[in-house]
Amino acid sequence: MPDSDKVLLAHGSGGKLAHEIVRNSVVSALDNPILNVLDDSAVINANGRLAFTTDSYVVQPIFFPGGDIGKLAVCGTVNDLSMSGARPMYLSLAFIIEEGLPVADLKKILASIGQTAAEAGVKIVTGDTKVVDRGSADKIFINTAGVGMVPEGVNISAANARPGDKVIVSGNIGDHGIAVMSQREGLKLQVPVPSDCAPLNSMVAEMLAVTARIHCLRDPTRGGLATTLNDFAEKSNVGIRIEEEQIPIDKAVAAACELLGFDPLYIANEGKLVAVVAPEDTENVLKTIKHNKYGADAVIIGEAVTEHPGKVVMKTALGASRIVDIPVGELLPRIC
Amino acid sequence: MPDSDKVLLAHGSGGKLAHEIVRNSVVSALDNPILNVLDDSAVINANGRLAFTTDSYVVQPIFFPGGDIGKLAVCGTVNDLSMSGARPMYLSLAFIIEEGLPVADLKKILASIGQTAAEAGVKIVTGDTKVVDRGSADKIFINTAGVGMVPEGVNISAANARPGDKVIVSGNIGDHGIAVMSQREGLKLQVPVPSDCAPLNSMVAEMLAVTARIHCLRDPTRGGLATTLNDFAEKSNVGIRIEEEQIPIDKAVAAACELLGFDPLYIANEGKLVAVVAPEDTENVLKTIKHNKYGADAVIIGEAVTEHPGKVVMKTALGASRIVDIPVGELLPRIC
Repeated sequence: MPDSDKVLLAHGSGGKLAHEIVRNSVVSALDNPILNVLDDSAVINANGRLAFTTDSYVVQPIFFPGGDIGKLAVCGTVNDLSMSGARPMYLSLAFIIEEGLPVADLKKILASIGQTAAEAGVKIVTGDTKVVDRGSADKIFINTAGVGMVPEGVNISAANARPGDKVIVSGNIGDHGIAVMSQREGLKLQVPVPSDCAPLNSMVAEMLAVTARIHCLRDPTRGGLATTLNDFAEKSNVGIRIEEEQIPIDKAVAAACELLGFDPLYIANEGKLVAVVAPEDTENVLKTIKHNKYGADAVIIGEAVTEHPGKVVMKTALGASRIVDIPVGELLPRIC
Repeated sequence: MPDSDKVLLAHGSGGKLAHEIVRNSVVSALDNPILNVLDDSAVINANGRLAFTTDSYVVQPIFFPGGDIGKLAVCGTVNDLSMSGARPMYLSLAFIIEEGLPVADLKKILASIGQTAAEAGVKIVTGDTKVVDRGSADKIFINTAGVGMVPEGVNISAANARPGDKVIVSGNIGDHGIAVMSQREGLKLQVPVPSDCAPLNSMVAEMLAVTARIHCLRDPTRGGLATTLNDFAEKSNVGIRIEEEQIPIDKAVAAACELLGFDPLYIANEGKLVAVVAPEDTENVLKTIKHNKYGADAVIIGEAVTEHPGKVVMKTALGASRIVDIPVGELLPRIC
């Protein structure tokens, strides 16, 4: 069979072409001694509390300002592990590719995966490639699962917020959603918005070096800041009060949201975290986040309270209070 | 938003409908205390050598004789872990669903996942659901990743075959591929062939209780027995000699292969294993496999030899010898 610049059904068959693409493209981009064995499972050493997570990525378009589906797939799983307090270590990587995807696109995505994994200090140790016929998928879908170790003494959960705890956001919200959305819809924003897509494991490690009393931690992806805060309020059975004026938003994102009729509280982020922290640790944690390259714009946006348990209430810029609910239906499909 | 009997884009949005489907369908089908926490990562205890693997499932049709995409997704990952000698423990479960999938189909698949996981003694501890617009996927794709612990003293690898070792197959080959193929193409076989889809972890545990000297172990899925044996020969740098007359094939499968022009050596299996075992352990291991409910038809089909390293040679029923190569291109797309 001749060389092809498109991915063929045969590339997912388990035959020679499949071997070729795995060896030439995947292993060369992600070279490490565990992956190179190419047995059915990777075998690694683990002692203690293991965090384990998975996400599939179906973002459309697959390339967008500030990232691509590959970078997103690594950051998303690295961040999910980090939000449990774990040190991310190993990732799996599974592709579902639509027949006809340019091999050049696959290589670009693999390079991006390799680069992001290197930055985050994680290894891709096992993987899978399936190819489906044209029209049965949309270019490429990626699943990553990840494992990491949770250091002793760390106990982070959405159920751990206590009245008096402060709520910190690590930077501007809504960048990722607006970046993908404007690329997809061909919107010409006055100032282009790049996705905030970034691995946050170094930030979390630095925070945990300051104090183990990080109560809740979450990256506000699908459903945005509002959904994350509601989850904390519900699971911890506390109220959460936030101040609209404190919520950091890039001007271009705010303008795009106004134009499109979106509330930035509900827009996905891929390089931000929300932390609920004991009051006595708040200043130190905030300072630490601000020192990290992805946390310069971090601020305290509110606190956990005994009133209105399970609900998030926002004091608006005009001084009124409104309940910030979770969205019922679809906001932005295929944002990650 | 009204109740729907179809999966909607909103079910994958991170909003209320997404919460509802996760709580009502997924968690109720797979109930266990780790999953129920629904944090970003599952946290579990691990001490020792951890096996970690992933596979995506894109089988078409999603329901077929003897199984469905859900059963397949659990068995596939349980079996990949088992083939490294690991005891499978925890699985992740990620859906990519095409908008419009009947919710009844999703529930049937979830029930099947729950049942298969229970049989295999594994827990689904973390997951993800994405919904894409109609036409951007084909009904449902599933990714499972899995972790398990490798017992001390176990050292299984495709690179471990030694001349003199015997090659055992745990039963009839080709059932899964022919079952899916005939369902997809609407073939009316004289005798219907059900998929062999089954979790093999109990079989492997029983084998390892007999001897730690299992050298190679693999479930011959995509690419079939031929591809598995070639991988062993290549990685172990030994020749493998097999006898056509010893290879167990169901009559209906043999007939279907003849009709369709397929070589059963290349057809996918989902409930079979190939073991390469030290000669002194062969009889005991074979007896053990035959006692397992999925191993009644196990046989020795050949051995590893010093001649023709890296190649698989088959003595045919007529006494001739032929090289059994790995396939170049596509055999049966979307078989798993």
